[in-house]
Amino acid sequence: MMDAVNLLELEQLARGVMDPAVFAYVAGGAGDERTMVDNRAAFARRRIEPRVLRGLGAVDLTADVLGGRLAMPVLVAPMAHQGLVHPQGDLGPARAAAAAGAGYCLSCLANHGLEEVAAAGAGGVLWAQLYPFRDEGQTREHIARAVAAGYGALVVTVDVQAYGLRERDIRAAAALDMGALTLPCVPLAAGRTEPIPAAEAGEHMKFDLSWDDVGAIVAAAPVPVVLKGIIAAGDARLAAECGAAGVVVSNHGGRQLDGVTASLDALPAVAEAAGDALEVYLDGGVRRGTDVLLALALGARACLVGRPISYANALGGAEGVAAALGMLRAEIENALLLAGCGSAAEVGPSIVGSAIV
Amino acid sequence: MMDAVNLLELEQLARGVMDPAVFAYVAGGAGDERTMVDNRAAFARRRIEPRVLRGLGAVDLTADVLGGRLAMPVLVAPMAHQGLVHPQGDLGPARAAAAAGAGYCLSCLANHGLEEVAAAGAGGVLWAQLYPFRDEGQTREHIARAVAAGYGALVVTVDVQAYGLRERDIRAAAALDMGALTLPCVPLAAGRTEPIPAAEAGEHMKFDLSWDDVGAIVAAAPVPVVLKGIIAAGDARLAAECGAAGVVVSNHGGRQLDGVTASLDALPAVAEAAGDALEVYLDGGVRRGTDVLLALALGARACLVGRPISYANALGGAEGVAAALGMLRAEIENALLLAGCGSAAEVGPSIVGSAIV
Amino acid sequence: MMDAVNLLELEQLARGVMDPAVFAYVAGGAGDERTMVDNRAAFARRRIEPRVLRGLGAVDLTADVLGGRLAMPVLVAPMAHQGLVHPQGDLGPARAAAAAGAGYCLSCLANHGLEEVAAAGAGGVLWAQLYPFRDEGQTREHIARAVAAGYGALVVTVDVQAYGLRERDIRAAAALDMGALTLPCVPLAAGRTEPIPAAEAGEHMKFDLSWDDVGAIVAAAPVPVVLKGIIAAGDARLAAECGAAGVVVSNHGGRQLDGVTASLDALPAVAEAAGDALEVYLDGGVRRGTDVLLALALGARACLVGRPISYANALGGAEGVAAALGMLRAEIENALLLAGCGSAAEVGPSIVGSAIV
Amino acid sequence: MMDAVNLLELEQLARGVMDPAVFAYVAGGAGDERTMVDNRAAFARRRIEPRVLRGLGAVDLTADVLGGRLAMPVLVAPMAHQGLVHPQGDLGPARAAAAAGAGYCLSCLANHGLEEVAAAGAGGVLWAQLYPFRDEGQTREHIARAVAAGYGALVVTVDVQAYGLRERDIRAAAALDMGALTLPCVPLAAGRTEPIPAAEAGEHMKFDLSWDDVGAIVAAAPVPVVLKGIIAAGDARLAAECGAAGVVVSNHGGRQLDGVTASLDALPAVAEAAGDALEVYLDGGVRRGTDVLLALALGARACLVGRPISYANALGGAEGVAAALGMLRAEIENALLLAGCGSAAEVGPSIVGSAIV
Repeated sequence: MMDAVNLLELEQLARGVMDPAVFAYVAGGAGDERTMVDNRAAFARRRIEPRVLRGLGAVDLTADVLGGRLAMPVLVAPMAHQGLVHPQGDLGPARAAAAAGAGYCLSCLANHGLEEVAAAGAGGVLWAQLYPFRDEGQTREHIARAVAAGYGALVVTVDVQAYGLRERDIRAAAALDMGALTLPCVPLAAGRTEPIPAAEAGEHMKFDLSWDDVGAIVAAAPVPVVLKGIIAAGDARLAAECGAAGVVVSNHGGRQLDGVTASLDALPAVAEAAGDALEVYLDGGVRRGTDVLLALALGARACLVGRPISYANALGGAEGVAAALGMLRAEIENALLLAGCGSAAEVGPSIVGSAIV
Repeated sequence: MMDAVNLLELEQLARGVMDPAVFAYVAGGAGDERTMVDNRAAFARRRIEPRVLRGLGAVDLTADVLGGRLAMPVLVAPMAHQGLVHPQGDLGPARAAAAAGAGYCLSCLANHGLEEVAAAGAGGVLWAQLYPFRDEGQTREHIARAVAAGYGALVVTVDVQAYGLRERDIRAAAALDMGALTLPCVPLAAGRTEPIPAAEAGEHMKFDLSWDDVGAIVAAAPVPVVLKGIIAAGDARLAAECGAAGVVVSNHGGRQLDGVTASLDALPAVAEAAGDALEVYLDGGVRRGTDVLLALALGARACLVGRPISYANALGGAEGVAAALGMLRAEIENALLLAGCGSAAEVGPSIVGSAIV
Repeated sequence: MMDAVNLLELEQLARGVMDPAVFAYVAGGAGDERTMVDNRAAFARRRIEPRVLRGLGAVDLTADVLGGRLAMPVLVAPMAHQGLVHPQGDLGPARAAAAAGAGYCLSCLANHGLEEVAAAGAGGVLWAQLYPFRDEGQTREHIARAVAAGYGALVVTVDVQAYGLRERDIRAAAALDMGALTLPCVPLAAGRTEPIPAAEAGEHMKFDLSWDDVGAIVAAAPVPVVLKGIIAAGDARLAAECGAAGVVVSNHGGRQLDGVTASLDALPAVAEAAGDALEVYLDGGVRRGTDVLLALALGARACLVGRPISYANALGGAEGVAAALGMLRAEIENALLLAGCGSAAEVGPSIVGSAIV
Repeated sequence: MMDAVNLLELEQLARGVMDPAVFAYVAGGAGDERTMVDNRAAFARRRIEPRVLRGLGAVDLTADVLGGRLAMPVLVAPMAHQGLVHPQGDLGPARAAAAAGAGYCLSCLANHGLEEVAAAGAGGVLWAQLYPFRDEGQTREHIARAVAAGYGALVVTVDVQAYGLRERDIRAAAALDMGALTLPCVPLAAGRTEPIPAAEAGEHMKFDLSWDDVGAIVAAAPVPVVLKGIIAAGDARLAAECGAAGVVVSNHGGRQLDGVTASLDALPAVAEAAGDALEVYLDGGVRRGTDVLLALALGARACLVGRPISYANALGGAEGVAAALGMLRAEIENALLLAGCGSAAEVGPSIVGSAIV
């Protein structure tokens, strides 16, 4: 862990300590992994046009998100089955995120319960991700538990109409052992007392989700609802119409449909469609402070970071994640200073030069 | 065969079991193979813009083609000399295609007869490819036999004014042994009783084909005629004028003139020129479910798939082809679901983002 | 030689038989060799849009050039010091070109005399390249000798204001031994009787050439004058004004100024500026029949081919060059047939699709 | 040194003789070094459109800069800590630059004093770079000393609001030993007599620099002030408003914020904004004579060259730098001749073809 100079290096370091099948599960994307790669390439296609002599001694990295305030414009993305990665699962990362002032978005398919993770991440901005269940009662119970535990927003993932075809997973399938991991965030159906094995997640998820389903969740939820997995500007407009409070521009880290537009490339049109009606977040390929700078410039309020946190968790649990968030914070701060931006909130499109293909 | 996770992997697996000269014949393209490579790259240059929350539980993959109905929007492309690849030649692939609900387009230069292959592919959508012969009587006889055997359309290949200069073939020429293979689909000239050796195909083909020749075939054929090998929109207009029912946008898999526009790149203009007058199909580089999705979006009714079927045939005959078509079907289904498209027929240009070069 | 399937392969084959310093001299370009590489890449950036069903049984490859007729739209480019490559220097290539119906443009810095090469290439289209000399008398004498020997056009090279900085040459300088080679095409100054050693070429060339100098040559020459080394359309207009009969779009094969526009990229604007006032030729990177097809389509009347002829000469003298020209002719013929063009003269811009970068 | 044929080769040669940590410090850039690489790539994306027959026997390479005249349109860029590279630090390079007629811009963080370097570079165009100090008195003293020593312009570096995150440095940090190097150009605070150790540079620099600070320097300085580190055209306008005499388009050689636009790409808009109000210079990636040609064509009056001079200094001190400047001068001369430009001053945008990406 301590040998990494940036978040990108965590992948190779983590590969050295993780079970190969678990690494395949975390690192892989769908199909030829073109979208996964393109998520990164989209940042490299953009150019920053910095301004100088702004008299900046320090920069303000805070970001106001859905009623909470982040000390840095970053949230940990929801990632299922962190128990595969570290025995403490989400507990360490949630604690590290709270300490760093980053948000934490807990996966609905976590291996620790909503309440337990909320306790670990106490003091931080906490969001609860939700895959709506086939049984609406389970969905309602999940929302109620999340709100009771202090999660400030619900993040409904909308890009899993089916599992993506992740070929590293298919090849490693026999080797991936979920063992005794369970899904304590998934409410038990009436009469069931045994915790749900992690391998059975798909049996409970509702794949044929519709705008009506999401509308019902928005109506029922006492906290803001964010839709994660929006690429088309038209879907951002529908999200606003159905009462969502925000959207996460995301292609699920390239893990669902290969060939989908890179998140950063999709961001400007979504941000324009969102206008003031929705808060817009970016997920996918964020590894550098300059990535965050570009995302802010193109309309995001903050970024979600996924795989690097998983790798940091594998390498060092809470301490590892703290180090990763520390490196990222330092890079963001440096990027704002050198781009001539006094605060995350003021970063605008003027600092983005034309794309170089 | 069973080790392949996708159609792309079939090539390397097949290379391991095929005679090198036969592999060179199947795998190679003309010249520097730029067009062959670009056929694949053209898919990679496009981006998919998926829609979410469409309430999709399943998707309808059927495609209506020239009076028949496919269970999946795929036809096996005509490929000469499958007898080089598997002792049963086209018999296994035709059987597998019929079982999968994919169409089967039998090469005029097959090593089994029209009737025999029709029997193997009974119940499926069958098309008969035709290289018009120097002897018009042979052409008429081929058409009559094809129609009598139940082929629902004639596919006239129009891009072989000469053989392409395939350098892998030239290098392997001495090693390629057609042995006792014959061309039982080629009608015998009057008085001839010996079946035509496969190596003599070119002696019977009419290379200086004209629109008049094709017009005569259309006038004579009791089934719809599809022209395969159209790249220019202007030729699609001429195809409609001469009474063709459809066109296959194709550069012969990069096997004829190197440097020709990739099939997918040529598709939109051809589809626009075709309007409602012609059914449009795409051939060239299709390996992935997302490739089919993009082709449908840009105007194709279905895709032709060639080399991967040859490789699957080499690896496992009917069973191999069934597995290949099964993988492709699963990918198409997944692609439609994740792009938010309820059916193959409804896939339109709105799901295509801008090209990234 | 006999192992080559195309002109591109000649380079590696020739490297195996040539003196390394001579190979460096022939193969190298200026600076980082970006323009040399880009000359080839420019062809790869273009796409061909073929037409079908034109009823073509054969194609007419002839090209009318400055009062002569080529059997194929190709001329051998002027290349200095062929005596380094083969003991017979230009004699074999000139003979092979005449036999193939390709033109032959003899370098002013050849190691055989104008008359001797004209005899070898008798019956073919012969042009004489000229680096105007510091001594105008020598220039006049060169022209007179060329005309007397039957050369039908003068090709004045205009892009050598200084030698290009060819780094392979600089590195190999000590190893390159011009030995006893002389320059018999360079007229001797008054009173001099010793033939000029090849190494002293630069001492006689006039580097500070102007439009006035060229105008004087045009006025004095009894044959048409072609300017070789034009990239800017503005210079094509000046060429027409000064009475030139044609221009060769050329960057000297990337041997002069690195970073210059690729020849093919420069061609369309030069051809437009030339209109009917000038014949336009293309030089640089031509290796394939499809390259010639694209050059004709974008405005060239014929192409000059350089290095591959040098390699063929090294590999097999006249026989080697005959084989190279034979391969090229076969490719051009195939390209025209498959693009649906009945003759070299009718190839036009409509067969060129858009550039793919 | 003597083995290098061009400036690019100096890097590998120097790597062989330099301490690895010092090489990392000189060669490295910020982050993923994308901007450092792109500075070079930006030249490769441009194409030169040369003109011919201009009657050029020689070219005039002189450039008038802020009241001085360079014999070639090149200045040595300010580079800190040359004492790490060669025991004589800037003395050798300054002497070589003066001899070659290139300008010399002495770093404010040099390891030899302003006066000592001025003596070494006597007769040449000398500029003094300045990182304004936290203590305004030190800034005033630095300016006074520079002017007294004969420096003709002050170059205020404006793109160091913080140190860039140079990862090669971070990895090599423990190994980089500044030893006894000091910063004799940094004036001593009142009462201090010990020279300032090189490692303490950052303690004296004012990072939160504003336009007001620069305005005050301009007002106080008896020589022209040039701002180095301008990328945005808007900042060029502000530079003119605050009284600067010139700007250096620069991203600090890719050493500050990774992802910033390449210098050459930023140049045209800055040059347009500058109009006649400012002299414009280009810094970043200049290694070739054609690079200088392109920079002149796109609006620069001269180029700054950094790392290659450092490498040449490491390889051979004054002699090494003389050789490097000699190679560069020869390339510039060749480039102008072959582009048809009679003088550096007349190079204009007409010789630049369109960018090829």
